[in-house]
Amino acid sequence: MRSLYFKEKIKFTGEQLVPHWTYMNFDILGDSIIAFIGPCELEEKYLIGIDHLKKKTQIRSEMMLHFLVEHFELDLEKAVLRQQLLVSILKDKLNHRLKGDVFQRWGNDIYEEDFKLTVSTVTKTSVSTKIHLGINISSKNVPVKAKGLSDYGIDPDDIAEVVMNQYRLDMRRIKEKLARTRSIGS
Amino acid sequence: MRSLYFKEKIKFTGEQLVPHWTYMNFDILGDSIIAFIGPCELEEKYLIGIDHLKKKTQIRSEMMLHFLVEHFELDLEKAVLRQQLLVSILKDKLNHRLKGDVFQRWGNDIYEEDFKLTVSTVTKTSVSTKIHLGINISSKNVPVKAKGLSDYGIDPDDIAEVVMNQYRLDMRRIKEKLARTRSIGS
Amino acid sequence: MRSLYFKEKIKFTGEQLVPHWTYMNFDILGDSIIAFIGPCELEEKYLIGIDHLKKKTQIRSEMMLHFLVEHFELDLEKAVLRQQLLVSILKDKLNHRLKGDVFQRWGNDIYEEDFKLTVSTVTKTSVSTKIHLGINISSKNVPVKAKGLSDYGIDPDDIAEVVMNQYRLDMRRIKEKLARTRSIGS
Amino acid sequence: MRSLYFKEKIKFTGEQLVPHWTYMNFDILGDSIIAFIGPCELEEKYLIGIDHLKKKTQIRSEMMLHFLVEHFELDLEKAVLRQQLLVSILKDKLNHRLKGDVFQRWGNDIYEEDFKLTVSTVTKTSVSTKIHLGINISSKNVPVKAKGLSDYGIDPDDIAEVVMNQYRLDMRRIKEKLARTRSIGS
Amino acid sequence: MRSLYFKEKIKFTGEQLVPHWTYMNFDILGDSIIAFIGPCELEEKYLIGIDHLKKKTQIRSEMMLHFLVEHFELDLEKAVLRQQLLVSILKDKLNHRLKGDVFQRWGNDIYEEDFKLTVSTVTKTSVSTKIHLGINISSKNVPVKAKGLSDYGIDPDDIAEVVMNQYRLDMRRIKEKLARTRSIGS
Amino acid sequence: MRSLYFKEKIKFTGEQLVPHWTYMNFDILGDSIIAFIGPCELEEKYLIGIDHLKKKTQIRSEMMLHFLVEHFELDLEKAVLRQQLLVSILKDKLNHRLKGDVFQRWGNDIYEEDFKLTVSTVTKTSVSTKIHLGINISSKNVPVKAKGLSDYGIDPDDIAEVVMNQYRLDMRRIKEKLARTRSIGS
Repeated sequence: MRSLYFKEKIKFTGEQLVPHWTYMNFDILGDSIIAFIGPCELEEKYLIGIDHLKKKTQIRSEMMLHFLVEHFELDLEKAVLRQQLLVSILKDKLNHRLKGDVFQRWGNDIYEEDFKLTVSTVTKTSVSTKIHLGINISSKNVPVKAKGLSDYGIDPDDIAEVVMNQYRLDMRRIKEKLARTRSIGS
Repeated sequence: MRSLYFKEKIKFTGEQLVPHWTYMNFDILGDSIIAFIGPCELEEKYLIGIDHLKKKTQIRSEMMLHFLVEHFELDLEKAVLRQQLLVSILKDKLNHRLKGDVFQRWGNDIYEEDFKLTVSTVTKTSVSTKIHLGINISSKNVPVKAKGLSDYGIDPDDIAEVVMNQYRLDMRRIKEKLARTRSIGS
Repeated sequence: MRSLYFKEKIKFTGEQLVPHWTYMNFDILGDSIIAFIGPCELEEKYLIGIDHLKKKTQIRSEMMLHFLVEHFELDLEKAVLRQQLLVSILKDKLNHRLKGDVFQRWGNDIYEEDFKLTVSTVTKTSVSTKIHLGINISSKNVPVKAKGLSDYGIDPDDIAEVVMNQYRLDMRRIKEKLARTRSIGS
Repeated sequence: MRSLYFKEKIKFTGEQLVPHWTYMNFDILGDSIIAFIGPCELEEKYLIGIDHLKKKTQIRSEMMLHFLVEHFELDLEKAVLRQQLLVSILKDKLNHRLKGDVFQRWGNDIYEEDFKLTVSTVTKTSVSTKIHLGINISSKNVPVKAKGLSDYGIDPDDIAEVVMNQYRLDMRRIKEKLARTRSIGS
Repeated sequence: MRSLYFKEKIKFTGEQLVPHWTYMNFDILGDSIIAFIGPCELEEKYLIGIDHLKKKTQIRSEMMLHFLVEHFELDLEKAVLRQQLLVSILKDKLNHRLKGDVFQRWGNDIYEEDFKLTVSTVTKTSVSTKIHLGINISSKNVPVKAKGLSDYGIDPDDIAEVVMNQYRLDMRRIKEKLARTRSIGS
Repeated sequence: MRSLYFKEKIKFTGEQLVPHWTYMNFDILGDSIIAFIGPCELEEKYLIGIDHLKKKTQIRSEMMLHFLVEHFELDLEKAVLRQQLLVSILKDKLNHRLKGDVFQRWGNDIYEEDFKLTVSTVTKTSVSTKIHLGINISSKNVPVKAKGLSDYGIDPDDIAEVVMNQYRLDMRRIKEKLARTRSIGS
């Protein structure tokens, strides 16, 4: 599994969820996690949750750190479990930087009390599953009660690197464990 | 998914990993998470990791809080991902009780610095996947550098309940999300 | 699995086969069976069988009782087996009301001798499988030799409820059986 | 899918559920349905339902017509759905012979009112799934309130042939339908 | 699995990769391998490899013998393995006709030294997997260094028949082997 | 995927087919192909083909080059397809060394005319699929009409290395292709 922290701004609109987007833009072939910074403004056709689609939920943020994961495998439940893991990793790294138990995971979101820091989605394409996880850098003009990395003085570049490293490490460990596990009789 | 906190002592030997053990002992049918307290002394034939089997690793603890999960589904990778989630939940609940960033997850184990608190395994039976996660209550006579709940004054009964509730909640949310997610066109 | 008998008329055109249609229209999330009454006039683009598509078969009926099932699972063969079960249930309930062995299942259709009472299709979306089963209420102007519920004095409201109840019951029993079944050695 | 009606008596003990039993005894390779007549006396180790195993349920009958199905495929839910279909077919053929609505399917059993006519099980081996369906010929000495084919003057040889033919026909239609079905857009 | 050698010219543009194309054009239902002769000129929207799509690779040939395979099954890795087998079969049949070790398989292509003879692709539709394998008859005006059947005096009609027969035979043997194989204990 | 050519003699009895044998003996974790030289004398309990088991076929050879493959994945059909590929690779390498079209693949065996050179089996364990392919070095005392590498002056060490390299290369290419392939719209 490869990773990349792309240093130029990209606006996340949802079109990044199409299959092979990472290959088409960065020549990274196969399972990958990439990170980049940019605004978030989800186009309606990329609203993945049907409840969001029905309510035409506005999903936007002035400036976010985005993680984008693609696994070439089609099991959506597995992708949802990986999304949970990615959110947990991000939450743990944030707490670690503040040396406290400041942030909580609720489902696939990160909160400090009732301040929301993240948006996240997971979907299935015809050849892969994809995860998006965005965390506010700025919390200005977010349509819900929100905070962002800059409110805590947390460096997005550092977070981007440690989260991607941890996710790749966990994925490698999981793969190895599959080859190390015995089944149990009747 | 049902849960049960069984209040009598049970020694965890590994035989609890056979399929339908929860049904045979507690009449709980279907996916389940149960918790109980007791010593841990793994019999060699129940060493699931082939590295442990090869080295005949001693896995034992005088007193542990045990979680035992069974899902009637055969995908081992999914079970490993659920194990990661269960370990994350336990770790978060522990940190929350100490109001700090005390415990870390390393793979599927929980540490405070280099003190190990847990053992965990995941395996596949012919009809289900099973997860065991045990956390020391006492850290005496553990064959590695260890700590336990009693070293922190954490109540195992409370932990048992909140971890099981959170795991069930996350499983329910995941299942609902599968029905709420749109796929994305090529 | 949830069910709903919707009392207003809906014309079945095939567009009801798109994923999440039941959620978008009735806020029912997850696996479901719903029933409603209305004409049937299948648009060509919703002809699921390639033989029908090739021959541009006309599928229409003045008034039908429709069943619409969605399972968030992608195995088409399983969906076809469930379709057979749904057709069997409907046929049994009809015979039961007439206290006789009047109706036969041929594949996924119900006949009295060479009078056809039903149309049925099963398909796969990107996130689910769907079953449609419609039974004539009126048999007028159907393009094949046909009969309908009104020819037998059978009440569609009653049939709708008992068929949905039986299908849900069978689905629950099947799910429970999966957790109750041992595998067999060598 | 091949079928065979074996004319010599075989006692059904459960050992017929091991994989490849039909090949080892009749040289029939691949998916198959066979039928034979004989007593039923299930050995405890072949009790497939864990509830039966726990209660050590006695499953026996003096004389039964047995159907034994093997599919070289591992999806247990699919096997359960096929079991439902096989039971439905048998029930329909019985009703047809009595020209009435005499027998009902309850789950995977056939009843006339509260008289039970059948036993059935479905299981998973390491390489296949298997279904057993036995219907009493004699209803004497059955440990529950029971009836059998001889109580209705129904010929087991005829039933054996028509049930196997219908099951094979349905399996072939299902397979063809998989190749005839279009999916439906998002 | 059925096969057909269609004797009229068809230009391969990629549109033949849509599901059910073989049924819609030749009434062949289910898994199939067909062969035909014609030019190859791939339209951009049918470029399956994302590297080809990105570079807008020109894939064309004046005259080719085309094989087109459809399996109603969705596992892309299995389709890729079958593609390898199909390419191996074609290569072996070519060598056999020249009574030498003239042609080599590189991945899914056939070469004589650095002369390329074939193009091949494999893809997944919503209901099936499809393989295309084309071998030059003429090697004129191919955009890479190429040879074709006419350079060796090999008869395309003969090759078409023996390759299809061998592929069908191998598929049948594989299916039978699945029913003949025992699993092995822990 | 790792590989190893082990230089000490090992007698192939079938026990090498149990899961994790390669890890337990050579500390190679995960998917692997290994090669070694030794006699072949299959114990009856390791006869995988049920036809062999039924006939108690003698499978033995005085001296063979053995390939042993393990993939931590459970799809037997995929394993059979990989076995075909492995046999093709071996056959191609042999022909290449003799610069001719001497050897043919029949199913999963290699022949020169009616002289058999190989034995091969494929099976499924509870956690993996395994392939064995053995080619005679000596053809003395083989229970069928046979030839071996020494009859052709072919060096087993060279063959071992090139076959393993080619198999690993093909597996890597296949994996990459899965991430490079677009699906095609209906």
